[in-house]
Amino acid sequence: DETRRVEENGQFPDPAEWAVTDVVDYFKAAGFEEQAGAFQDQEIDGKSLLLMTRNDVLTGLSIKLGPALKIYEYHVKPLQTQHLKSNAA
Amino acid sequence: DETRRVEENGQFPDPAEWAVTDVVDYFKAAGFEEQAGAFQDQEIDGKSLLLMTRNDVLTGLSIKLGPALKIYEYHVKPLQTQHLKSNAA
Amino acid sequence: DETRRVEENGQFPDPAEWAVTDVVDYFKAAGFEEQAGAFQDQEIDGKSLLLMTRNDVLTGLSIKLGPALKIYEYHVKPLQTQHLKSNAA
Amino acid sequence: DETRRVEENGQFPDPAEWAVTDVVDYFKAAGFEEQAGAFQDQEIDGKSLLLMTRNDVLTGLSIKLGPALKIYEYHVKPLQTQHLKSNAA
Amino acid sequence: DETRRVEENGQFPDPAEWAVTDVVDYFKAAGFEEQAGAFQDQEIDGKSLLLMTRNDVLTGLSIKLGPALKIYEYHVKPLQTQHLKSNAA
Repeated sequence: DETRRVEENGQFPDPAEWAVTDVVDYFKAAGFEEQAGAFQDQEIDGKSLLLMTRNDVLTGLSIKLGPALKIYEYHVKPLQTQHLKSNAA
Repeated sequence: DETRRVEENGQFPDPAEWAVTDVVDYFKAAGFEEQAGAFQDQEIDGKSLLLMTRNDVLTGLSIKLGPALKIYEYHVKPLQTQHLKSNAA
Repeated sequence: DETRRVEENGQFPDPAEWAVTDVVDYFKAAGFEEQAGAFQDQEIDGKSLLLMTRNDVLTGLSIKLGPALKIYEYHVKPLQTQHLKSNAA
Repeated sequence: DETRRVEENGQFPDPAEWAVTDVVDYFKAAGFEEQAGAFQDQEIDGKSLLLMTRNDVLTGLSIKLGPALKIYEYHVKPLQTQHLKSNAA
Repeated sequence: DETRRVEENGQFPDPAEWAVTDVVDYFKAAGFEEQAGAFQDQEIDGKSLLLMTRNDVLTGLSIKLGPALKIYEYHVKPLQTQHLKSNAA
């Protein structure tokens, strides 16, 4: 599982295959220890993560607004963009 | 009722005639055992299912965000698209 | 009051003059016995009914999602459309 | 204060200078005795009133949906439109 | 920290580097003593502040609607606009 969550050869990992625990581990590693559990509570796996909008992150996880804004902007959005690029290539 | 919920001759079923129990059975069969009851609670029959938006599924059923995202993307949306195509044909 | 809520000469009734009780009676007659009281609770008269959006019906009345979807699509929306047409004519 | 809330010389009053109590008095005079207190509770003065959207009135004041719809459509919106016109002139 | 929150040489401060306490101090100094604590509660630092929409300010901070409307319009929005201009220059 670990290999799926880290970048290899400068490649961004594709979350499409992540289990809920992979999502949780990703956000723990990204510095959101306190918020990571919310992804477990809401049963967000990689496929669901790729479907989340800004509003879903801000209002559907019951986490504080400050961290939620960064989780979306600096993590969820880039992961989705990268996933789209990888699949288009 | 069973026949209404399964594909016949490679045809996608049209939910327009489904009763609430048909909707519940559909989501149970689709692997959402835990979430299926929410459609019963909110009295969603086939006609209502065809009217649901992404936001309705995510915020109106009181189900967890992860499964809700998949229920909309992989089930409600395709059922609606197929229904529109069938009626246009 | 009764005359205001029924179609006359094939004419659709214009709810602009309905009192709250007329609105409640309309939805009872339309088969939404259980939901009709919500219009009383929220003090929706005909003028307010004509101002309601889909979102207002779904989230502002505290009624179940399934009936709410039908109340908007098959009743509130057509009443508003008809009202607009009548006033334009 | 009274002068600020009444029309003078056929002029519509500009709420930009209203205190919270002026806003409350305006809605009392407009027939919304029961709802006027919500503007006090949420500390809405004239400047805030001019910034309110339909959604803010419907969901941010904790008042009933029927009166809220009329408060926005027949009062908040016209006051804002008039304010914009006065400032443009 | 103080220097980061005050204008220098007629320059508007850029909140991108503000800690949560800087955000709180900014709103206290701006006259929102009562609301400033909400930014602490929601752990809003400068980076998060720059990502906030009108809706986030109005519904995500659990503060009263009147002050929230002014906080967004007269502070959050101008800070974001100024930040964008500074970075474009």
